[in-house]
Amino acid sequence: MLSKLEERAVSLGAKQAVLETYSFQAKGFYEKNGYELRMTLDNCPETEQLHYMTKVLGQSS
Amino acid sequence: MLSKLEERAVSLGAKQAVLETYSFQAKGFYEKNGYELRMTLDNCPETEQLHYMTKVLGQSS
Repeated sequence: MLSKLEERAVSLGAKQAVLETYSFQAKGFYEKNGYELRMTLDNCPETEQLHYMTKVLGQSS
Repeated sequence: MLSKLEERAVSLGAKQAVLETYSFQAKGFYEKNGYELRMTLDNCPETEQLHYMTKVLGQSS
């Protein structure tokens, strides 16, 4: 489903994808799919982190 | 106006602020007001950059 979303974004002219995921969510999944961790906000909230990840689109993965 | 917004956020329990500003917008203004540049997305779009900035709230500035 993620790759379908990326294909659709590219078809609309997107060059890169940006997403936010919490530390209790799916960071590892996105890393496996080519997303790079760019920024982490600590204490967001309390002991959790909010991760910002990006991926250049339109290249073979 | 920015400081009023921050005061209001703190009164609601916020611990930090996150904002996005484009390279043709007000990055310098936010830096003067205590925001730290955390991440920059290039080619967003074309020759512009999108900057992500954060500030820890509730401390004397």
